[in-house]
Amino acid sequence: MTDNDAPPSPTTAVAPGAVCVLGLGLIGGSLLRMLSGTTEVFGWNRSAATVEAALADGYDVSADLPGTLRRASESDAVIVLATPVTTLSGLVAAIAEHAPDTLLTDVVSVKEPVARIVAAGHPSARYVGGHPMAGTSQSGWSATDPRLFRGAMWMVSTGDGTDAGDWLRVASIALAAGATVVPAADDAHDRAVAAISHLPHLMAATTAAVGAGESGLALRLAAGSFRDGTRVAGTAPALQRAMLEANDAALLNVLSEAIDRLTHIRDDLRDRGSVEILVDDGHRARLAYEAIASTTPEPITGVTIGTPGWQQELRRQAHAGKVWVG
Amino acid sequence: MTDNDAPPSPTTAVAPGAVCVLGLGLIGGSLLRMLSGTTEVFGWNRSAATVEAALADGYDVSADLPGTLRRASESDAVIVLATPVTTLSGLVAAIAEHAPDTLLTDVVSVKEPVARIVAAGHPSARYVGGHPMAGTSQSGWSATDPRLFRGAMWMVSTGDGTDAGDWLRVASIALAAGATVVPAADDAHDRAVAAISHLPHLMAATTAAVGAGESGLALRLAAGSFRDGTRVAGTAPALQRAMLEANDAALLNVLSEAIDRLTHIRDDLRDRGSVEILVDDGHRARLAYEAIASTTPEPITGVTIGTPGWQQELRRQAHAGKVWVG
Repeated sequence: MTDNDAPPSPTTAVAPGAVCVLGLGLIGGSLLRMLSGTTEVFGWNRSAATVEAALADGYDVSADLPGTLRRASESDAVIVLATPVTTLSGLVAAIAEHAPDTLLTDVVSVKEPVARIVAAGHPSARYVGGHPMAGTSQSGWSATDPRLFRGAMWMVSTGDGTDAGDWLRVASIALAAGATVVPAADDAHDRAVAAISHLPHLMAATTAAVGAGESGLALRLAAGSFRDGTRVAGTAPALQRAMLEANDAALLNVLSEAIDRLTHIRDDLRDRGSVEILVDDGHRARLAYEAIASTTPEPITGVTIGTPGWQQELRRQAHAGKVWVG
Repeated sequence: MTDNDAPPSPTTAVAPGAVCVLGLGLIGGSLLRMLSGTTEVFGWNRSAATVEAALADGYDVSADLPGTLRRASESDAVIVLATPVTTLSGLVAAIAEHAPDTLLTDVVSVKEPVARIVAAGHPSARYVGGHPMAGTSQSGWSATDPRLFRGAMWMVSTGDGTDAGDWLRVASIALAAGATVVPAADDAHDRAVAAISHLPHLMAATTAAVGAGESGLALRLAAGSFRDGTRVAGTAPALQRAMLEANDAALLNVLSEAIDRLTHIRDDLRDRGSVEILVDDGHRARLAYEAIASTTPEPITGVTIGTPGWQQELRRQAHAGKVWVG
């Protein structure tokens, strides 16, 4: 279909190629399961028990980190960091040693802190961050599900210096997993997830703690509003802490806003008997979310990846709600 | 099975008999649907459009309040108040006029304010309050579902002066609807629902408002934690306000506790980079809730309704997590 005289189009669909997943918990393990059979994919986990479980399920995994990284280097794999942010610096140092030229991405929930860890431990890394918006309150290999990413949004870091070929290959992993790509700058992403993921965890924890402190009668009477409003408080505390504390600056901002709103409505309820302002604001916001969640996002169009300003144009269209579908 | 010389046991199962539902929104309409076919049930709604819709679905309903109340009186029905708390005083006045001796219950979410409205408008009323812990974020006749109460907890007011026969008949409606009866004092109930239902509404509204205020990118990236944590913010604002503002004293207490917890963790996050205390407390509380929600409650035993102190004994066993199953 291409003109014989033209160079290959830089937006030609790219295949994931080989993929090396470091960390086989809910996200990494689900990604390994999903990509198996469609592309070469192999993994590593620190825990021998997890490796044994994944081997027993028929997957190509190992507990040997240097060996896995050398294999990634030799097979030109994309390395996917899929461990908690608190464990990344050791992995990055090993990558700098054993697979220094290999393209690197991650599936951790914050982007600026991960970029800082990568830059500190491996300054010459080819790194394009990522974040699939998928999860459950379960964790570990036993919770993995190849369908976890189906229909999910998957942020791919899109900075002014991002390499076009590397970006396309990382985006192709998200697409191969069944997700939709949302290009964004790291700082904008981190502010966004503070608001729509990390704050909800603190709100759920608060609702759960206040409800359980009331009486046994209260938990017996608890129904849908409590069940749904506290669900994510059931996530393993260490995973929640690693995620939230890594995004402390952005989280502090939205947490302060939440406290301000609650304090304002407490004053209104005490002085005027009214919760109108907050209930109305919340209702409007929920309807706005439902409108977005219930419609298929429009695809980003008219951008040739690799031409001058492509990163800025992707971000601009993503901010208007559009997504990259390959 | 009873001894011929003994009087009929006061705990003999009681049938609902005729039931008159005033208000055909989500709760009242679902109750009417559920009881139809198992007992005589008829209803009233202020809105002609709702009455027409319910008539078209084959139900025995009317927009004539005095006529409906006279029929309730003549058929010894139980009248079920199923309209927002802000509309109750007019209904209670009409009941005092047209059906003064008819047993009265309600399905409104607060019990002390409803008891005050009934006492003010109809001092001699035979009233036993109730509250089914069931709902969705939808409302109105079109949202009604006869299975809404299946497996739900249904609080029945159990005060020291509650009449045994009246209590059994109101409890029989809850059981006939497929729910499980939780006996409780009105004030204890109102504190409990402030914690496990009304506070979750304000937390959901806050989460929604903060998330939507961040950017279009934020709502595009929103996933399960935001979706579940904001669900009840989608409930019609007028219904939320009526429910929450009627329980202002109890809600102020739990709202202040929530603000204190969030403020404390903001300070910890700012000063020590830690959200450990709140995440741990919330996780423990969620597990406690899951343990309660996932096990079949034990039945209240050894209480003969109508014998001295039966109300106190029901409340005591309910506070320990047991339920009345008839």
